[in-house]
Amino acid sequence: MATKHILIVPGDGIGQEVTAVGKKVLDRIAAKFGHTFTYDEALIGHVAIEATGNPLPDESLEKMRNSDAVLFGAVGHPKYDNDPSAKVRPEQGLLKMRKELGLYANLRPIKLFDELLGASSIKPEILKGADILFFRELTGDIYFGEKGRKNDGDTAYDIAEYSRYEVERIARKAFDAARTRRKKLCSVDKANVIETSRLWREVVQKVALEYPDVEVEHQFVDATAMLLIKDPRRFDVVVTANLFGDILTDEASQIAGSMGMLASASIGDGTGVYEPIHGSAHDITGKGVANPLASILSAALLLDISFGLKAESEAVISAVDGVLKAGFRTGDIADKSTPADKILGTDAMGEEVLKLL
Amino acid sequence: MATKHILIVPGDGIGQEVTAVGKKVLDRIAAKFGHTFTYDEALIGHVAIEATGNPLPDESLEKMRNSDAVLFGAVGHPKYDNDPSAKVRPEQGLLKMRKELGLYANLRPIKLFDELLGASSIKPEILKGADILFFRELTGDIYFGEKGRKNDGDTAYDIAEYSRYEVERIARKAFDAARTRRKKLCSVDKANVIETSRLWREVVQKVALEYPDVEVEHQFVDATAMLLIKDPRRFDVVVTANLFGDILTDEASQIAGSMGMLASASIGDGTGVYEPIHGSAHDITGKGVANPLASILSAALLLDISFGLKAESEAVISAVDGVLKAGFRTGDIADKSTPADKILGTDAMGEEVLKLL
Ligand SMILES: CC(C)[C@H](C(=O)O)[C@@H](O)C(=O)O
Ligand SMILES: CC(C)[C@H](C(=O)O)[C@@H](O)C(=O)O
Repeated sequence: MATKHILIVPGDGIGQEVTAVGKKVLDRIAAKFGHTFTYDEALIGHVAIEATGNPLPDESLEKMRNSDAVLFGAVGHPKYDNDPSAKVRPEQGLLKMRKELGLYANLRPIKLFDELLGASSIKPEILKGADILFFRELTGDIYFGEKGRKNDGDTAYDIAEYSRYEVERIARKAFDAARTRRKKLCSVDKANVIETSRLWREVVQKVALEYPDVEVEHQFVDATAMLLIKDPRRFDVVVTANLFGDILTDEASQIAGSMGMLASASIGDGTGVYEPIHGSAHDITGKGVANPLASILSAALLLDISFGLKAESEAVISAVDGVLKAGFRTGDIADKSTPADKILGTDAMGEEVLKLL
Repeated sequence: MATKHILIVPGDGIGQEVTAVGKKVLDRIAAKFGHTFTYDEALIGHVAIEATGNPLPDESLEKMRNSDAVLFGAVGHPKYDNDPSAKVRPEQGLLKMRKELGLYANLRPIKLFDELLGASSIKPEILKGADILFFRELTGDIYFGEKGRKNDGDTAYDIAEYSRYEVERIARKAFDAARTRRKKLCSVDKANVIETSRLWREVVQKVALEYPDVEVEHQFVDATAMLLIKDPRRFDVVVTANLFGDILTDEASQIAGSMGMLASASIGDGTGVYEPIHGSAHDITGKGVANPLASILSAALLLDISFGLKAESEAVISAVDGVLKAGFRTGDIADKSTPADKILGTDAMGEEVLKLL
């Protein structure tokens, strides 16, 4: 019987709608398994800028540090996207949170629920059985290096940087995970052109010596982007740098049928943060149609990784599976054969999951 | 009746095998249409390092400058890939060629031949009618910025850089092309995080004002990586930076059924260079099984773009189409339904194309 304090950080857009459902699922799990979960909320992103001028107020950061886990929504707002010169941006809150909490490892499991084989744009026979675990480095690379303008603003620059230590710790996490799975690790870089990638490859080659039981492959990022679609089953654990991981995991969402199904865990030195890989999706915000399953599956990851509650985590996953088996779909994962009355909105989908818990 | 001097630069691995076929096709076109094409050869990449110690000998560069167009193969060798600390690398020859010849625009048309609908891992109903023209910037970004090590080699860095001028000239080329097509342009960046991307977006927004007839969309690279697979038909012209273009075009090769079908044109200030987007593929080198169609289609682009020979270019493309319609396939584009006797090697495939010319 665990007593835990969970911080809900909805952020922007559909982040609000989906974390509300994720929280209900956590609540149900606590009741069912006899745990005590307490909750608080904190602001980040555009909503935080509107309220305080700061995309990650100190108060939010304090609350994160003092909680046992964070259930996170999304950040972003079209307003800033169309104004490249904006000085304060929602994403700064996200990046600062990752850096301040030392969340250097972002785990993104990509696995297709059998019922969704038809929802992907990739052929079922290519997809069936695909099961990939991405480790995206999350606190280095071009995301965090110095950036700016020179020549009167006519030239822009960004510095990508990695230290041996940063590569080593994420590589170790990925190798450890590979050991518990099919014992294959693919490290992705662009070592034929980029110096940070050459360091990356050097370090992964060295760490690999400690894991002789894991089969290692080094791939160039362009090849991986191609092979993920051509033959997703060849991958088991994939480890890569921040920027490449951002691109490849969004691409790989198509293997899972929809971005709306994918959860991620950001872990490292302190509190773990659990969030859908989808964004704030302002085009559908407020319509009540967002798929809450990625947030629910994020809650499942939270239970497993931050609280070590395996049975509870599996109960959530199998409830999601049950709802899909019963034929319920949100719009993003429906296909031509889905009857109209099985297409549910955010809350109704959440209710179906709760019913099975 | 044109008199032209074409430089064949096979480079490494299957580059040798496929450019030999591409050259035969150019020769046939000259004979058929009454042109005079003369040829020379030059070294680049691993073969150039072996012969001269230099991945792009001055002599090769001189020959490129003095020819009307270059038919290029591929560069690369596994030897260097597994040795991140190698000081001299085949790819340096490729990058130097791009820089020295001012090849700032890399055009990659992605179009599926109807006969190959079955060869892709993406569902036919998602693919049918997809037709994308990528403009990848080719002489800037993290590829060409300063890079190195610090802290006794424990930290690696790469500088990504773009100037207004560099973004503007590639944007203009992309907008011009959009005008001759479906009048849609998608500019891809990561402006929510990267400063070079913010400059990129600013400049594209500004250039867009000169093209009010072209519909412009700005996308984050992670979203594009996802949408290319989910809904390839939404794209017409896509313009992006060097690194993003490298990743996205390889990914998009899956829309065309296989990497072995895709040609590219690198153009800019001087001689144009035409090459397959596939690499040196040392795993199949010397086996005579490489798909020569990308090199043949590169020859078609060469005829069109560098020589302005539209009818000749179209003759090549329709010969490729005819060969596919007749059911001939190389291994990479064969599917379960291809009869064994229709699966051809490199030279035999080339012969079939020549027969139709
Ligand atoms: C919002 C953005 C800064 C972020 C990223 O690029 O890391 C997002 O795409 C993600 O993957 O979490
Ligand atoms: C070989 C490599 C340096 C090159 C690149 O990254 O540009 C290749 O992948 C390409 O796309 O032409």
